[in-house]
Amino acid sequence: MRIYDIIYKKRNKEKLSNEEIKFFISEYTKGNIAEYQASALLMAMFLNGLDSEETANLTSAMMHSGDVVDLNGIKGVKVDKHSTGGVGDTTTIVLGPLVASCNVPVAKMSGRGLGHTGGTLDKLESIPGFNISLSIEEFIEAVNRHGIAVIGQTKDIAPADKKLYALRDVTATVDDISLISASIMSKKLASGSDGIVLDVKVGSGAFLKTFDEAEALAKTMVKLGTDLGRHVIAVITNMEQPLGFAIGNSNEVIEAMDTLKGKGPEDLTELCLTLGANMLILGGKVNTLEEGKALLREKISSGQALEKFKEFVESQGGNYSIIENYSLLPKASFKVPYISEFSGYIEDLKSDDIGIASMVLGAGRAEINSKIDLSAGINFYKKIGDKVEKGDLIAELYTNDESKVEEAKELLTRSIKYSSNSTESVKLIVGIVDSNGTRRY
Amino acid sequence: MRIYDIIYKKRNKEKLSNEEIKFFISEYTKGNIAEYQASALLMAMFLNGLDSEETANLTSAMMHSGDVVDLNGIKGVKVDKHSTGGVGDTTTIVLGPLVASCNVPVAKMSGRGLGHTGGTLDKLESIPGFNISLSIEEFIEAVNRHGIAVIGQTKDIAPADKKLYALRDVTATVDDISLISASIMSKKLASGSDGIVLDVKVGSGAFLKTFDEAEALAKTMVKLGTDLGRHVIAVITNMEQPLGFAIGNSNEVIEAMDTLKGKGPEDLTELCLTLGANMLILGGKVNTLEEGKALLREKISSGQALEKFKEFVESQGGNYSIIENYSLLPKASFKVPYISEFSGYIEDLKSDDIGIASMVLGAGRAEINSKIDLSAGINFYKKIGDKVEKGDLIAELYTNDESKVEEAKELLTRSIKYSSNSTESVKLIVGIVDSNGTRRY
Repeated sequence: MRIYDIIYKKRNKEKLSNEEIKFFISEYTKGNIAEYQASALLMAMFLNGLDSEETANLTSAMMHSGDVVDLNGIKGVKVDKHSTGGVGDTTTIVLGPLVASCNVPVAKMSGRGLGHTGGTLDKLESIPGFNISLSIEEFIEAVNRHGIAVIGQTKDIAPADKKLYALRDVTATVDDISLISASIMSKKLASGSDGIVLDVKVGSGAFLKTFDEAEALAKTMVKLGTDLGRHVIAVITNMEQPLGFAIGNSNEVIEAMDTLKGKGPEDLTELCLTLGANMLILGGKVNTLEEGKALLREKISSGQALEKFKEFVESQGGNYSIIENYSLLPKASFKVPYISEFSGYIEDLKSDDIGIASMVLGAGRAEINSKIDLSAGINFYKKIGDKVEKGDLIAELYTNDESKVEEAKELLTRSIKYSSNSTESVKLIVGIVDSNGTRRY
Repeated sequence: MRIYDIIYKKRNKEKLSNEEIKFFISEYTKGNIAEYQASALLMAMFLNGLDSEETANLTSAMMHSGDVVDLNGIKGVKVDKHSTGGVGDTTTIVLGPLVASCNVPVAKMSGRGLGHTGGTLDKLESIPGFNISLSIEEFIEAVNRHGIAVIGQTKDIAPADKKLYALRDVTATVDDISLISASIMSKKLASGSDGIVLDVKVGSGAFLKTFDEAEALAKTMVKLGTDLGRHVIAVITNMEQPLGFAIGNSNEVIEAMDTLKGKGPEDLTELCLTLGANMLILGGKVNTLEEGKALLREKISSGQALEKFKEFVESQGGNYSIIENYSLLPKASFKVPYISEFSGYIEDLKSDDIGIASMVLGAGRAEINSKIDLSAGINFYKKIGDKVEKGDLIAELYTNDESKVEEAKELLTRSIKYSSNSTESVKLIVGIVDSNGTRRY
């Protein structure tokens, strides 16, 4: 088999066989296929498409390019959650303890962030003492004992995806439904959970701009998981504006704790209840969304969810006193208010610009080896549809580098569009896709 | 300007600006653009196309990626000829002296062959003493003095093409009209001739299979040349079977001399007269094809064409006694007849297989650094439509490696398709394209 013939075939819009896809992935992972041939093939896949069988074969090949984690040592139906990206996504830190408090085990392998803010691992590491480096055995034991553990994704989970993603990133072949689906699902399937809830972002702040695109991605991923014997539900959620208030790392941990205490931002709470209820459905705890949400609300109001968070932090060596004393988390030297110069209704928010402002202040990585300032970030308090008066507090900026404040403020100014007429707020949950089809909201 | 954005744009089927194309070519030539980004862009160009303006800009950028040869020191209208590839193409060695004998100067820069046989340079080097390494000054002086000179293409003619071609070759992005046109025309335009006659091959032995494809390539190249102030005529010729009898190196030189003596194969003679007549038209010597052919026939029958060949060989240091004594050329130790085992009419010939058989015997390069055996090759005497009796001589194989004979014979057997009914011979010249349009034959 020759990679040239595989490129030629896909260039001519022909269907690739499972053997051809497996050859490409395994030889590319081993370094036996030149990057320039892989990138030509990726562009041909991007432009000529992969059908559902090819996408499934690609996913399976990528999933088997490294370790496939065996979580059978964990009792119960293990459920994972994945978001397709967005700005200000604190859901994982809320959902883990929340779902675990309902006795559905959460065994989560997470990544670091390359983008506006850190990933879940970075955020958790802002908790003093928190250790994300457990062995697989320790990880399984922790989940069995506490119902929840979060560790760093091992290097050997879908190494093909890591290499391919880096190549797609520099060759304009990222935003394709088949390639994205294979990338996400190969990692999720290799990570060993029985059920997966996907949070598919749509809108101007996401890379999928329309509901139809998001639905296509959701359907593809649900089918991929279902075909490989997993239960998958995809929730399509709006990314017209940042989720919650906090964008950063330690401020997102604070927001997560607020949410677990029942006083989090409305949109973040709603999303966590919806995603969490679907996780409970997959975990066999409840039968309906409403039943699930009710159970989760009860866990929050009774304090059991927060108690589970405490247990989780403690079990991984973190200082759980942060729950009562937020000032134990990394704290920025500068806290600068961003005040509205206009009066009006917020018509539009450019999530990307707000995210970049946060990165500028130190909260994210501009490059893969950049160091994150865990105390930096933005709390952005306004939402689309909100009425704002001149002089109102719109956001607070946190940083240790005062010289970056002006640039971040300019980005915020650019990100907000005011209207003199009242504007509509944005509906957060817009659809749910499972193996039975799509429900729109 | 970033290469990523250029890839992204072409991936989205947008038109690239001249600045973007120039940036790509100049930075890629300098080694500032990664091969994997260049290959992704080539695949996007291949699949989403380049319009005529983009193709012209690409050609111009590639032409200016290295030296642009100034042939103004040569008196008269300089005319060049280029064939788009094929099997058994001896035309250059015939046409050079033939056209020069009509006082149209031929200043030819040639390449080495990567394929079934050597290139023009390899073939000329089978003439003992022949020197293809003249400086540009010596080259110009030789053309002014003798009307003809042939030298190796300098490394700095369109270096972008050299790099891009090597990349296209391994990423399945060769056979695209725009990319081929830009590749051929950038080199021709940088080589400094005033007029260019293109021999565009079509048919099963060429990479363009249909007349429409060949016409599209021809039109694109004629327009590219015309837009840059050159006169270009493209002759579309059939490549259903090898041209002439000889496929190799020294045997092709012999065939060229036979043709200049008026006793060459009919098809090779016809093609040389047609291409040559068009060169005379561009050189301003004649007004019509018929007039041109008549003049060329006269130069052959009078011996002036052969005399010019002798002068050409002598001026470049070669032993012109070969004209009278073919045995002075490299001679293979083994000469093996290939005899027909069937009776019937030849219905089809696979040129590629015959070419590969010749390469197997030593006449071509399997890899860029392979050494050619200048004495090896095949004389294939039969054409489509010929009646063959069992026991007839079909071909003669020349080699110094007797162990390769069986493999070559098997390839020949595979290449011939017989029919019990009489079959039609193949029309050689099928169309001519110039700036006035297409004439079909």
